[in-house]
Amino acid sequence: MDRIGILTGGGDAPGLNAVIRAVVKAASTLFGCEVIGIRQGFEGLLDLNGTLLLTPDSVRGILPRGGTILGAANRGNPFARRVIRDGVEVIEDVSDLVVQRIHELGLDTLIVVGGDGTLRICVELFEKGSPVVGVPKTIDNDIQGTDVTFGFDTAVSMATEAIDRLHTTAESHHRVMVVELMGRNAGFITLEAGLAGGADVILIPEIPFCFEPIFEKIQERARAGRYFSIIAVAEGARPKDHEQIFRMEGDKIRSPRLGGIGQYVAEEVAQTCALETRVTVLGHLQRGGPPTAFDRWLATRFGAAAVRLAAERKHGYLVGLHGTEIVDIRLQDVLKRPKRVDLDGEVIRTARDLGICLGN
Amino acid sequence: MDRIGILTGGGDAPGLNAVIRAVVKAASTLFGCEVIGIRQGFEGLLDLNGTLLLTPDSVRGILPRGGTILGAANRGNPFARRVIRDGVEVIEDVSDLVVQRIHELGLDTLIVVGGDGTLRICVELFEKGSPVVGVPKTIDNDIQGTDVTFGFDTAVSMATEAIDRLHTTAESHHRVMVVELMGRNAGFITLEAGLAGGADVILIPEIPFCFEPIFEKIQERARAGRYFSIIAVAEGARPKDHEQIFRMEGDKIRSPRLGGIGQYVAEEVAQTCALETRVTVLGHLQRGGPPTAFDRWLATRFGAAAVRLAAERKHGYLVGLHGTEIVDIRLQDVLKRPKRVDLDGEVIRTARDLGICLGN
Amino acid sequence: MDRIGILTGGGDAPGLNAVIRAVVKAASTLFGCEVIGIRQGFEGLLDLNGTLLLTPDSVRGILPRGGTILGAANRGNPFARRVIRDGVEVIEDVSDLVVQRIHELGLDTLIVVGGDGTLRICVELFEKGSPVVGVPKTIDNDIQGTDVTFGFDTAVSMATEAIDRLHTTAESHHRVMVVELMGRNAGFITLEAGLAGGADVILIPEIPFCFEPIFEKIQERARAGRYFSIIAVAEGARPKDHEQIFRMEGDKIRSPRLGGIGQYVAEEVAQTCALETRVTVLGHLQRGGPPTAFDRWLATRFGAAAVRLAAERKHGYLVGLHGTEIVDIRLQDVLKRPKRVDLDGEVIRTARDLGICLGN
Amino acid sequence: MDRIGILTGGGDAPGLNAVIRAVVKAASTLFGCEVIGIRQGFEGLLDLNGTLLLTPDSVRGILPRGGTILGAANRGNPFARRVIRDGVEVIEDVSDLVVQRIHELGLDTLIVVGGDGTLRICVELFEKGSPVVGVPKTIDNDIQGTDVTFGFDTAVSMATEAIDRLHTTAESHHRVMVVELMGRNAGFITLEAGLAGGADVILIPEIPFCFEPIFEKIQERARAGRYFSIIAVAEGARPKDHEQIFRMEGDKIRSPRLGGIGQYVAEEVAQTCALETRVTVLGHLQRGGPPTAFDRWLATRFGAAAVRLAAERKHGYLVGLHGTEIVDIRLQDVLKRPKRVDLDGEVIRTARDLGICLGN
Repeated sequence: MDRIGILTGGGDAPGLNAVIRAVVKAASTLFGCEVIGIRQGFEGLLDLNGTLLLTPDSVRGILPRGGTILGAANRGNPFARRVIRDGVEVIEDVSDLVVQRIHELGLDTLIVVGGDGTLRICVELFEKGSPVVGVPKTIDNDIQGTDVTFGFDTAVSMATEAIDRLHTTAESHHRVMVVELMGRNAGFITLEAGLAGGADVILIPEIPFCFEPIFEKIQERARAGRYFSIIAVAEGARPKDHEQIFRMEGDKIRSPRLGGIGQYVAEEVAQTCALETRVTVLGHLQRGGPPTAFDRWLATRFGAAAVRLAAERKHGYLVGLHGTEIVDIRLQDVLKRPKRVDLDGEVIRTARDLGICLGN
Repeated sequence: MDRIGILTGGGDAPGLNAVIRAVVKAASTLFGCEVIGIRQGFEGLLDLNGTLLLTPDSVRGILPRGGTILGAANRGNPFARRVIRDGVEVIEDVSDLVVQRIHELGLDTLIVVGGDGTLRICVELFEKGSPVVGVPKTIDNDIQGTDVTFGFDTAVSMATEAIDRLHTTAESHHRVMVVELMGRNAGFITLEAGLAGGADVILIPEIPFCFEPIFEKIQERARAGRYFSIIAVAEGARPKDHEQIFRMEGDKIRSPRLGGIGQYVAEEVAQTCALETRVTVLGHLQRGGPPTAFDRWLATRFGAAAVRLAAERKHGYLVGLHGTEIVDIRLQDVLKRPKRVDLDGEVIRTARDLGICLGN
Repeated sequence: MDRIGILTGGGDAPGLNAVIRAVVKAASTLFGCEVIGIRQGFEGLLDLNGTLLLTPDSVRGILPRGGTILGAANRGNPFARRVIRDGVEVIEDVSDLVVQRIHELGLDTLIVVGGDGTLRICVELFEKGSPVVGVPKTIDNDIQGTDVTFGFDTAVSMATEAIDRLHTTAESHHRVMVVELMGRNAGFITLEAGLAGGADVILIPEIPFCFEPIFEKIQERARAGRYFSIIAVAEGARPKDHEQIFRMEGDKIRSPRLGGIGQYVAEEVAQTCALETRVTVLGHLQRGGPPTAFDRWLATRFGAAAVRLAAERKHGYLVGLHGTEIVDIRLQDVLKRPKRVDLDGEVIRTARDLGICLGN
Repeated sequence: MDRIGILTGGGDAPGLNAVIRAVVKAASTLFGCEVIGIRQGFEGLLDLNGTLLLTPDSVRGILPRGGTILGAANRGNPFARRVIRDGVEVIEDVSDLVVQRIHELGLDTLIVVGGDGTLRICVELFEKGSPVVGVPKTIDNDIQGTDVTFGFDTAVSMATEAIDRLHTTAESHHRVMVVELMGRNAGFITLEAGLAGGADVILIPEIPFCFEPIFEKIQERARAGRYFSIIAVAEGARPKDHEQIFRMEGDKIRSPRLGGIGQYVAEEVAQTCALETRVTVLGHLQRGGPPTAFDRWLATRFGAAAVRLAAERKHGYLVGLHGTEIVDIRLQDVLKRPKRVDLDGEVIRTARDLGICLGN
């Protein structure tokens, strides 16, 4: 193994730099192997200035930093890349060029750190003969084949800290605080942060919710003298009668476009429960900033494990965490279906056992 | 001095509990004096169950906690209190009743912890003969007579940490991050957090802004290879041509009702600079949570100083910080005009010296 | 199930309150079952005032707090309790009394939250017929039968943050910073925090260390222009020639009594490498303070799972985490041998792959 | 003004990088003026490779980082520099060389960021004709002429957080926790963190302490059912009968060499009060890590103000904070006497009013 490449794709996740650092340190310490960094995802393979040599010096001090030193601004999919030709936007398949560039750069392995979308590209490139190894990256924890990915713990920590902050104001000022968290399709962040933060209501995409049990929970608390409640809602949570309400364009427009589901829930609660409500949308605060110790630790292990796969030329595989062990799984198997909260699982049961309202 | 009362009014501010604790500890340690806590602001004086005896035991462990154990849910102004009579909301002046209750409760002094609005009520009660002492409380730092109040440092810290988090994503993903901070009329939080967080553009209510210099700053950075920028904007910042744009209701509605000034700025920047933008509205995250060490320290000193004023029967005064000293100022003098960022001052000059765009 | 008891034993661990809260909430929500809290570990069963009824109101607001509301000050082992009789300290076996009191209190189940020592008592009480269920608690992560316990993540986070803080000073001021972390017999905290914090040298109890490779690592870095290094050392780490040096009492006393292993390592490095060194002993900072989101989440799941075991009358079992699942294991099986860092495992290999010196 | 230099001297303080960044940004934005960074304090002026050109690019991203990019490893005093000549250490005065180098480098102004020692050198160089401007830097807050310096707030925040962490364990496990904080001669950190953290006993260098009132305070708390206490002690605090005890070398050596004053206090308390005690020495944790928002803000203002002084050629002055204003003071005036806690001041009075034991 003389030379490996690494690129980071998709949205930001704390721990990307820790992966890059581990790859560079492991490759150079173990094998004296060169590492080529590819800028801005796959885009860097299409650009003459898109690569840089990564040495242990290049990765000094990046372990605790959020973001990625390789950048990930362009989310171009090489199988369907948008370009402007003669003033018209057209979609091109430049995957052959990418495969060729990986070859030209002399990469024995290309380590791709990315989420669902990026890993799908990875599989297709592998099928075209490229020597790829995958590292899972998803804030939402929605990738099969690993118990968890780096970035998730940081997001949950940030979200829990936010719930803590809202708690004191809620209690002192008799308010219902709604906090909208990340998770378009998977409710892991909201469920874990909601439990860790002591939320009274937790709404996730996997459980279409009704308002009745929510109102009931809040009013039951008010009757017990607790004139405040915390509602943690995933951005992708939807009311059961979703179609009807979210497209309704009568006298009161209530599309999530005008404020998201958090806003919507807050307005409904304010109206029915006669309590002041406030909404906080955490948004990008969950994605940035220094990774937690856990995420640095996991990302470092993923990076070193990816180099080991590269050394074994075990291409087409993804590294993952199972229990306390690092494992590897065939990329195709991983992508068959996304990971979702198990509605019959112990965590959901724990939430119910604690008396938390899940909106159903 | 046998008995003093304390109430907290208005919005939440980290440090309220530290004031309460210091008042109780100082009053009981120094004078063996009883302290009566009044719940929910002035409202607690109108309610038979609105008061409680505060002992050193009642205030154990509250120093590091946000919120207020006395509550401040009802913002009723006793000079103009909203009540429902025969199904109709009417405004009543119950200030005489409040004055009478202060007397009936045997309070030698009533310590009132509150912002501009609450302190105005305080002055009026003083003029009616009530023995009040004020402690300033404002997240926004907009009260004259004190260099700073508790809660402000916590708000600035939280806002700066948020800017730090957004920074890494902005840089890695080539985005313009807009963060909307508290401050309807005063830009102190935004100015201090913007400087501490390294914002490129800072927009405050005291400086009506133009978009041209903002676009220019962002494009200048992009030309230098920095395809990202951070814009810190106070919720009360407004474009110079405010009237025209914010009331415009043509084909594109742009009222701040639909997303606030942060959203508005982000959309304009996205359109003109052709960069991806994201908005984060911190909102109540700035108000809650544990006070910083500085805020606990200041709140504790304010509380002890208020008890000293009570002991000297120096009513009608407000405690404040001047440099390293605790001072007291006549309440009337304090409220003559609100505190605003000094546009000719050193801080604004420092911002300009560093090349920060202030929108003018 | 009418009534269950709960006690916390042994040293402090962030998350104890989260377990208590979950037990109370789950027991009362699910079964309308009473929960009796036992103060100060098993000691509370021997004292007439040693118990209190725990209601959902008793556990309000304790989720984010370190420590334990039940106390754990007395580490008395009922099988060998120290008492003073006629001025002489004697050891008594009061276990029969404990068994009897559990019966008298009408506890259908006693949930015991504790570490290795407390769980051993638990097994013996179970063998005497007491209906016990165990919840593992160890900062050090040295209990078999669970991937990890609550408190560990908080300790690692705190330790990593400390390493981060020392890093900047080390780099700016050309120093070797030695940080001594918890772990008398198990090196998990030091290994994980060392990796997450980017330590150059990691010394754990499982690997008796030699000084030569440590000096070599530090000097190699200095030759590369990095005149600073970070050494993370577990309090229980020992040099290979341990017997000789640690008992040596010649002209220079070097027993760990006079400063611990961190101090010892720092002095040796200073002498041989001619670099300034500084030692920081984190000590109890790793045990206190608010639990991380992960620890609150895990502790909450453990508490709810313990109540489920109680409901199934599955006594003599311990709850644990395997991968993403909560499991239960027979207490006897768990205590056969303690958990230690696997020297042939992937984590140790990752540390080596990154070029970290492990002292061998 | 064509070219200014900057160096950082003495121990670490969070905010040094923020000063450097502000100087570079202000100098280049305002005047197109070059900035030369001098490495490792005054030592960089004696070394051919000791300087580097600082551009806005050099200071990107350093605002939130602890340490100093210029280094401060060598504390050499040019008026008394230790060198090895013919195998013998001799003290040389190389101040003329330093003055000459400042001239040769064409520095219109040299901005020196340092504490008491470094600023004294600064005055002497100014008296020899060098164009120096000072920026005060002291974790301990012991420099006259400024209300506070950067780094102090970070140190107090860290110390307060540590006290918070120890609090929960103290309370749950019935312990007296002693935390030893920085401050050899000035007690500001310990006093402020002690008050902010709710310490029961605060011991500072300015007040030689007796053990009697300390024991009394702890026992009074135990009698009231609080079997725990927090003692914050400055590293420079000393018992009144200091001479006798600290030099005593009888059968029991108790010199601070063997563990510092914290250890000493803990042992005395354990012996007399029959309570378990634990000591934590924060040490360098107070000096490192990211500066708080306040410290970044203050350091940034200091840096910009120093450039303004440079532009006005107002040499021999120090920038400082008075209230909300940045001021400048003649260096000579500042160094006449160090700053100490005012024993008749309001803060000490507040501590007493709250019932805190100050050891006298």
